[in-house]
Amino acid sequence: MEGSFDTEESFDDPSCLAPQPPGSVSPARRRVHEVKETKTTINGVTFPLPGEGPEQQLLKPNEWSYCDYFWTDKKDPQGGTSVGGFEVLLQKQLKGKQMQKEMAEFVHERIKIEEEYAKNLSKLSLSTLAAQEEGTLGEAWTQLKKSLHDEAEVHLKFSNKLHSEVEKPLLTFRADNFKKDLKKYDHHIADLRKQLASRYIGVEKARKALAERQKDLDVKTQQLEIKLSNKTEEDIKKARRKSTQAGDDLMRCIDLYNQAQSKWFEEMVTTSMVLEKLEVDRIEWIQQHLRQYTTLRHETDMFNQGTVEPVDQLLQKVDPAKDRELWVQDNKTGHVRPVDLDI
Amino acid sequence: MEGSFDTEESFDDPSCLAPQPPGSVSPARRRVHEVKETKTTINGVTFPLPGEGPEQQLLKPNEWSYCDYFWTDKKDPQGGTSVGGFEVLLQKQLKGKQMQKEMAEFVHERIKIEEEYAKNLSKLSLSTLAAQEEGTLGEAWTQLKKSLHDEAEVHLKFSNKLHSEVEKPLLTFRADNFKKDLKKYDHHIADLRKQLASRYIGVEKARKALAERQKDLDVKTQQLEIKLSNKTEEDIKKARRKSTQAGDDLMRCIDLYNQAQSKWFEEMVTTSMVLEKLEVDRIEWIQQHLRQYTTLRHETDMFNQGTVEPVDQLLQKVDPAKDRELWVQDNKTGHVRPVDLDI
Repeated sequence: MEGSFDTEESFDDPSCLAPQPPGSVSPARRRVHEVKETKTTINGVTFPLPGEGPEQQLLKPNEWSYCDYFWTDKKDPQGGTSVGGFEVLLQKQLKGKQMQKEMAEFVHERIKIEEEYAKNLSKLSLSTLAAQEEGTLGEAWTQLKKSLHDEAEVHLKFSNKLHSEVEKPLLTFRADNFKKDLKKYDHHIADLRKQLASRYIGVEKARKALAERQKDLDVKTQQLEIKLSNKTEEDIKKARRKSTQAGDDLMRCIDLYNQAQSKWFEEMVTTSMVLEKLEVDRIEWIQQHLRQYTTLRHETDMFNQGTVEPVDQLLQKVDPAKDRELWVQDNKTGHVRPVDLDI
Repeated sequence: MEGSFDTEESFDDPSCLAPQPPGSVSPARRRVHEVKETKTTINGVTFPLPGEGPEQQLLKPNEWSYCDYFWTDKKDPQGGTSVGGFEVLLQKQLKGKQMQKEMAEFVHERIKIEEEYAKNLSKLSLSTLAAQEEGTLGEAWTQLKKSLHDEAEVHLKFSNKLHSEVEKPLLTFRADNFKKDLKKYDHHIADLRKQLASRYIGVEKARKALAERQKDLDVKTQQLEIKLSNKTEEDIKKARRKSTQAGDDLMRCIDLYNQAQSKWFEEMVTTSMVLEKLEVDRIEWIQQHLRQYTTLRHETDMFNQGTVEPVDQLLQKVDPAKDRELWVQDNKTGHVRPVDLDI
């Protein structure tokens, strides 16, 4: 925010105490008769007002990059508070972590279903139903029952692989320091914002101080002109000196503020790019592991097909004549036919 | 059994009362001085003794046909009773009926397992786990969850077809009059055996009566020779006539017996062939329906493979850049970058 001031004197506020930046025109010397607002500072961050200032190009055009879209704080719809745009990016990361956890849970549930199915098939395969069927038909039936156990094995293998190749990775992906790292970024950015806010307060104080010094100088100058008081030129010089000082202090505060804002800006760009990459990696990693899931599904159906082959083969060999031969050999009572009775 | 007799007279036993078969030599006239046993009658059925009589060729060589191997009664190992060879064939049929019932039960159990599996998959597919995942990854995840419901449908279809194409037919195959028909065969054959047994008793009685007549004739002839009694030639003629009659009666009884045995024999051959065909049909019918089971299994695995395709397709389309664009558009807080504060 620009204000009007005019001073040649120093001021007392110690907050922006620093040597004057060389070559800069003391704000005290400048009086701006028209005050046009071209910028606005919200929560300590300074933005150009709409239509003011040079047009901004996106840092990374066509990429919808995080570093281009999260400069403004987000208002909490219910409370009156705001959070930084960075917070939105952070929450996105935490949500991603939650998603992988829930996906792991889903896979776990699938594993339980497969284990139950396998257990039931295995149990039924041990059934003695129609165990008395003999011969080639009996063999085919026996294999049919056994094939249920083979199917059970296929599904058990599926569930084991689901666990080791999908569920477990989903549970352990970024289980190490991920949240800690996020916290670090969070705190670091928050600290930079705090410093920025504090520096802005300094700027406002310096502006206020300068305005007071200006006012004081004006008043004393007017008084001198109308010979109202017994103030000497000495008093005016002092007032002027204080005014100048206040102007220098303001410039220093503004510099410090701009430095802090630059620092925060850089950190925002850098860190949001880190989060952007983390999100790309997360999506690709999950894609890869969900593909592992579909691969296992394909495999499982294929292996399952294989369990039917031996049954088909034995059914092919079913031979009623062979079975009759086997059964008759085991159960015949006598092949000698009756003959007529003689006299 | 052959015995010795010699008669020209009739006899009194009415059991084999019938006109004399023409042209046959009355057994009364023949005396065989050597009695060689070449046949034996067991439970009313007459067999050649081992090594006696012409060699028997199987009625259906190389076929292990029922009609060739169940002539002898089967002794009950525990009691002293016997059952006809036909009974063994009958029990085989009843066992076959039991086998199809047990197979149906097995299939029913499989159906229940499939329904449980389908129910579990369907329920899990409705899970809201990771429902907050958005963009292309969210779409792939949503389809992955949905695919469980598709799998459930496949397994439900499998279980329904198992029921209509395998279980139900197994339950209803020959459910109509099969057992009644078996009973009819059983009773018919049993009746013929009873008649045969009764006719054999008649033969034994006739033999006994003939022997008595022979003995009486011999005694009277001897007495005449030694002029021991006042018996006239008239008495001897009477005794001789009775002897002849007894011989004729025996011949008739033997004929009736042989007719009954022939009838039973024919019925045995015919009915055992019916049962043989029933068993061939049963085996082929079950083979066909178990093949239906394996066909359904093949189909099911194939359809199941199909449920993974849409998931693969959506996983293929997962695009972190696209997802970032969508998310940033929805969640951005502001794209205007901060600027330096001026004086």
